[in-house]
Amino acid sequence: MPHQNLNTYICAGDHPDITEERKKATFNTDNFAATLWGTHEKLERRREIAKYVEEHPELHDPYPTEFMDRQESLENVTRKTLLWMEHAENAIDISKQEEGFYFGTLITGSQGHPLSIHLIMAIPALMNNADEEQLDEWLPKAINREFVATYSQTELGHGTNLSKLETTATYDPKTEEWILDTPTVTATKWWPGNLGKSANYTVVMAQLITHGKNYGAHPFFVQVRDEKTHQPLPGVILGDIGPKFGMNANDNGFMQFKKFRIPRRTMLMKNAQVLPDGTYKPPLHPKLGYSSMIFVRSAVVGLMSLYLGQAATIAIRYSVIRRQGEIMPNAGEVKILDYQTQQYRLIPQIARAAAFRFAGIFALEMYNTVIHEISKGNMDALADLHALASGLKAVATFQTALGIEQCRFACGGHGYSLASGLPQIYSVAVGGCTYEGENMVLLLQLARYLRKRAIEIKSGGPKEKPTELSEYLFKTSAKHSLIGTNVSSTNFEHVIESFEHVARRLTLFAHSKLEKLEQSGMEHEIAINQTAVPWRRASHAHTRVALTRIFAHAVQRTTDIAVKEVLQDLIKLYIYYEVGECAAELLEDGFADGHQIEFAKDQVLEVLEKLRPNAVSIVDSFDFNDRELNSVLGRRDGNVYENLLAWAKSSPLNKHDVMPFHHKYLGKMMEDAREQSKM
Amino acid sequence: MPHQNLNTYICAGDHPDITEERKKATFNTDNFAATLWGTHEKLERRREIAKYVEEHPELHDPYPTEFMDRQESLENVTRKTLLWMEHAENAIDISKQEEGFYFGTLITGSQGHPLSIHLIMAIPALMNNADEEQLDEWLPKAINREFVATYSQTELGHGTNLSKLETTATYDPKTEEWILDTPTVTATKWWPGNLGKSANYTVVMAQLITHGKNYGAHPFFVQVRDEKTHQPLPGVILGDIGPKFGMNANDNGFMQFKKFRIPRRTMLMKNAQVLPDGTYKPPLHPKLGYSSMIFVRSAVVGLMSLYLGQAATIAIRYSVIRRQGEIMPNAGEVKILDYQTQQYRLIPQIARAAAFRFAGIFALEMYNTVIHEISKGNMDALADLHALASGLKAVATFQTALGIEQCRFACGGHGYSLASGLPQIYSVAVGGCTYEGENMVLLLQLARYLRKRAIEIKSGGPKEKPTELSEYLFKTSAKHSLIGTNVSSTNFEHVIESFEHVARRLTLFAHSKLEKLEQSGMEHEIAINQTAVPWRRASHAHTRVALTRIFAHAVQRTTDIAVKEVLQDLIKLYIYYEVGECAAELLEDGFADGHQIEFAKDQVLEVLEKLRPNAVSIVDSFDFNDRELNSVLGRRDGNVYENLLAWAKSSPLNKHDVMPFHHKYLGKMMEDAREQSKM
Repeated sequence: MPHQNLNTYICAGDHPDITEERKKATFNTDNFAATLWGTHEKLERRREIAKYVEEHPELHDPYPTEFMDRQESLENVTRKTLLWMEHAENAIDISKQEEGFYFGTLITGSQGHPLSIHLIMAIPALMNNADEEQLDEWLPKAINREFVATYSQTELGHGTNLSKLETTATYDPKTEEWILDTPTVTATKWWPGNLGKSANYTVVMAQLITHGKNYGAHPFFVQVRDEKTHQPLPGVILGDIGPKFGMNANDNGFMQFKKFRIPRRTMLMKNAQVLPDGTYKPPLHPKLGYSSMIFVRSAVVGLMSLYLGQAATIAIRYSVIRRQGEIMPNAGEVKILDYQTQQYRLIPQIARAAAFRFAGIFALEMYNTVIHEISKGNMDALADLHALASGLKAVATFQTALGIEQCRFACGGHGYSLASGLPQIYSVAVGGCTYEGENMVLLLQLARYLRKRAIEIKSGGPKEKPTELSEYLFKTSAKHSLIGTNVSSTNFEHVIESFEHVARRLTLFAHSKLEKLEQSGMEHEIAINQTAVPWRRASHAHTRVALTRIFAHAVQRTTDIAVKEVLQDLIKLYIYYEVGECAAELLEDGFADGHQIEFAKDQVLEVLEKLRPNAVSIVDSFDFNDRELNSVLGRRDGNVYENLLAWAKSSPLNKHDVMPFHHKYLGKMMEDAREQSKM
Repeated sequence: MPHQNLNTYICAGDHPDITEERKKATFNTDNFAATLWGTHEKLERRREIAKYVEEHPELHDPYPTEFMDRQESLENVTRKTLLWMEHAENAIDISKQEEGFYFGTLITGSQGHPLSIHLIMAIPALMNNADEEQLDEWLPKAINREFVATYSQTELGHGTNLSKLETTATYDPKTEEWILDTPTVTATKWWPGNLGKSANYTVVMAQLITHGKNYGAHPFFVQVRDEKTHQPLPGVILGDIGPKFGMNANDNGFMQFKKFRIPRRTMLMKNAQVLPDGTYKPPLHPKLGYSSMIFVRSAVVGLMSLYLGQAATIAIRYSVIRRQGEIMPNAGEVKILDYQTQQYRLIPQIARAAAFRFAGIFALEMYNTVIHEISKGNMDALADLHALASGLKAVATFQTALGIEQCRFACGGHGYSLASGLPQIYSVAVGGCTYEGENMVLLLQLARYLRKRAIEIKSGGPKEKPTELSEYLFKTSAKHSLIGTNVSSTNFEHVIESFEHVARRLTLFAHSKLEKLEQSGMEHEIAINQTAVPWRRASHAHTRVALTRIFAHAVQRTTDIAVKEVLQDLIKLYIYYEVGECAAELLEDGFADGHQIEFAKDQVLEVLEKLRPNAVSIVDSFDFNDRELNSVLGRRDGNVYENLLAWAKSSPLNKHDVMPFHHKYLGKMMEDAREQSKM
């Protein structure tokens, strides 16, 4: 039988330099892709969906969105979003979330679309907050898209701190209406996606005031534009908040209410209620306000895996096309991926993308389990889940942002062009450091969890049986790290145990610092602020333990032997790279010594060399297609340079050989100067 | 006498929260500003120039450039650039470079303008490469702006590697002409600033071929557009390379030659010459090709200080206006700068901006000294200078990029809006990591210098007297770091000596790794590539020594006592923060112990608290005016929120309450759905 290529992404007409790389694969790329995307069947569905989109030109952009201004790009994505909805039933199984997500992404891209908040937040908010009668009225209309809704919480002056929102809803029992009002500039609603131009309804969080008493922020469901004319209703001021770093196909909006009256039953009454006479009825059960927040944070981790994986795919592919400089004199220019520094920049990003992929899946699975347990009255794991999701979101978004920039730098000047796709990926991905809980705030939320564990450790043990992810906090460390004692193994337990030691030590260290300050007479809250930096460090260390453990479990579970081998290389790289990241923390208390750190660094360089021949095949297995990558540098076929030129030629400035204003300015300047010099 | 405010930036009508901060200044902000900008007189000139621009509305943008598409923004900046030139004689002393730079920046902003390469690169390239007759012909015209020129070196397939450029200039002795040609797609000139639309002449680097022999890349001065019509000349294909991450007011261009004939004397003949018969005459003296490159790298360090200082100014000012959350329950929301984590994010950026300011000045002074020495035949310090400039450029650009993003994150959601100005600063500044020598390449160039020093150390000492910045490499370390032994002092010599130890050790470590590989039979060049990551680490450590030494000297020289005190706080923060950055490298060989690292971390938190009340006054002293900052969040007066709203209201999408395409798409979708549900 003839030798079969294990990489299934090879096609005729590809750049020979990239085909050469693909022929080196030591594993079947479809098997790896199936591991990452779940099953071979799911992988097959991805390809069918991509093919469907490819075959329907009306789902494509008429020209690159990079060349559009905001109005064009809003119109273009609105057009495509409607077609997405129309085509969905033919193209996908709409009961499968991942199919809907993939189909939508291929069509709308990653810069936003006019139904995003309607689908992701407004409908869930109705489902969680509307009573049955309200649901009967609004939910079918929402699902049929008789209106487009959004969710308005953040204000100019306040973000997630619900208790300080300034928008008021004051009940008037005479007319049985709420009076929505924006009493200050800072009370202006600010940021809600699609609020600027697309939505005509919105959930509004406002301070509920009845009979002169403020009961805190509550949700209302408010019509803000006329259904026919789409004009803002009298008493509502609406607009777009202007251009942003990224996501410019989303019309994030602002909104002010001028004593705007709405009926009593616009208050969403599943939980609290207000009776016609203005009597406030508190919710029967305090609701689990933050479960949907945890869900979103977990989902963000998976999203980061996509962004970092895409950036790595682009940079790795380009690095085998680009040749620059010679390693051996007169031996010809080498592919830049042959430089150790280039490997050191790029291949760890692949490993991190894989780690975040598995962490995202794990967090969503844990979320489902915990929600199920809660429905049976068991709240035990909720705090663990909240801590995990907060830490993962903070660490994954920041490392993704850094990693994308390394990928971009590694492409040299071309990485700075929007043709590379990399600036766009960066500016969308880096938003994840801020939205859904700013990273520093999240790490301090996780620190609150660690403070409780520290008190338990000090007082003899956990109050309740700890979960898998926190039980290490109650163990005792070995005397000395075992890093480097177990060279040949593919088991990294001893390294992960060293990470556990660091996390435990930093937690107890921050705790003892806090205790000392309190003992010296400082108030508890002030002492917490004074130890925030050490607590943040402990939070990061705790998250490292989770990321490595989850990754290790996923590798263990892999059945395809060749895929498992390459995953073992990736986790080896991941783990020893992390040793370098926390080297100081391993050394500080003498738990590890310099030789062990050196050993880890050598392991990194060794495994980079081992991964080098598989690098292209690994990123191929992420199975991003060209439409998704939106990158001339990252094209599957490797035909970079001629397409860079074609892209540039089609850009709007090149409609004119001579700019229409040339003779008015530079032309006149030069002519005047020439005239003058003749005189 | 009444109490005088030491901060001179206080005005009536300012937000009281920012005035409160300014009243806490322990030093005179004008004295600090004069220290940073040179003298009180120079500071005064800055303010006069800013006032001049303020008073001439024709020098302003008609509306924010963030709302313009590329064509509008190119036209706008072209218009302003011409006015800049016209007003220069009235507004500034044109013999003073810093006045020209400041005046230009205030008018054109930081996203590029059509004469930038003409002024910064094309004229210097003519001066360095044209012979006297050529200079007589072209220089006056260049200075009078009878043409607009640029500098074309980089190609699609090659950047700085001159020897591999593919554009050819083949001499035809029959017609005494050069035939410029672009033999491949990858030979297309790509990136030259202002080449796309503005320039009509350009210096072109091309492989010089005469009598069948290639003599390598040489400069030619080529007309590429018709002087009257501005159309590209027949045989020249020109265009803009399309949108980029930043710098979109610059028409970076591409260019191809189709056997384009130009006269013999378009070759710039100061150095090499080609006679009419095609005889090649090599240059008499091998020229110092890279001196101008060193100059630009040094200048980039100063530029980074501006960008990071601007970002820090914006974030610090906003952090005393923004209130979020309570530290003590019911004590009211605090300014976010009161959080330790916020201080830890932001105040080190101020310290780094100051460090880069002094390093930039130092490098330019050293450049002038070295060039002067070279003119006297003394080349001793050139290698040191090249090493210094490469390292500083790589470290300053990367740390600036990271620091700007920390500033942006620290502003929460508003930092993601272009109203903050921060995304724009980031996307321009981060270009510095790539242009004028990609950072990784630069660190490896510095490593080459360190390899030579390592050989000298091993063979008994320096070949020539080492300069101030490299002599530490030949010293012997103390047995143990003295960090933490000298608590009360404002002298950080012992900490800097610890940084020296690290740099020396990492240099010798990389060297011994390299030697071992060579001894095992590996070829020298391959062994260098195999040790590139450890060499990169040594280069960074060497640069840290230079940055801290230069900063320390600058603080010592400061005469104003109150300014010196706050600078001492800043350098203390800077230096102990750096201890944290290289903690692992201090611990690895046992040179420092965990207590010393802990001591350094405590020093950081302590000095942050001390700097907190001065933070606004320090960034005020950077003396960036509102026009330069281009940030609603960073306004001097602190009136953030009402101006965010005004900015958004004036943005282009808000010209329409209802988008012109609404009824065609979303409007129709909703109407159809409503109709259907009625049936």
